[in-house]
Amino acid sequence: APPARPARLGLCAACHGEDGMARIPGAPNLAGQKRDYLRAALAQYRDGRRDIPMMRAAVGPLTDAELDQLADWFSAQTPAKGAP
Amino acid sequence: APPARPARLGLCAACHGEDGMARIPGAPNLAGQKRDYLRAALAQYRDGRRDIPMMRAAVGPLTDAELDQLADWFSAQTPAKGAP
Repeated sequence: APPARPARLGLCAACHGEDGMARIPGAPNLAGQKRDYLRAALAQYRDGRRDIPMMRAAVGPLTDAELDQLADWFSAQTPAKGAP
Repeated sequence: APPARPARLGLCAACHGEDGMARIPGAPNLAGQKRDYLRAALAQYRDGRRDIPMMRAAVGPLTDAELDQLADWFSAQTPAKGAP
């Protein structure tokens, strides 16, 4: 079954799209990315190993379960061949 | 015209595949990722803002031009719906 729609998805959608295809320059596509990679990246943004203020602001307050939901959601989306 | 095959591609292929589809757990898919995001991520691995030893070892010695070539190459690949 496809993953449930995360309650926190709105935090991500402005830049990454609900479908995981980037909406702003500089933001990555997340659709179809490897689930464990996404989950590790989210943790690194949260704990600062990835020192990116914008992302620390977005995911700083999120729980592990919320990070799991977001990684499950975006990894399950179908990647499209967007503009490079 | 599709980008030239980067001389340094072999450095990446073991984990990311020449086609940008991850070959090992934990490595991200790079195929079809946003070009500027990839280029920024590579710079962050090189300068340590992304404190990931494995990637610092891989891209530490690379020049800006070599990072450009790799970002051009992988962003031009077609993403496949791999296993999440």
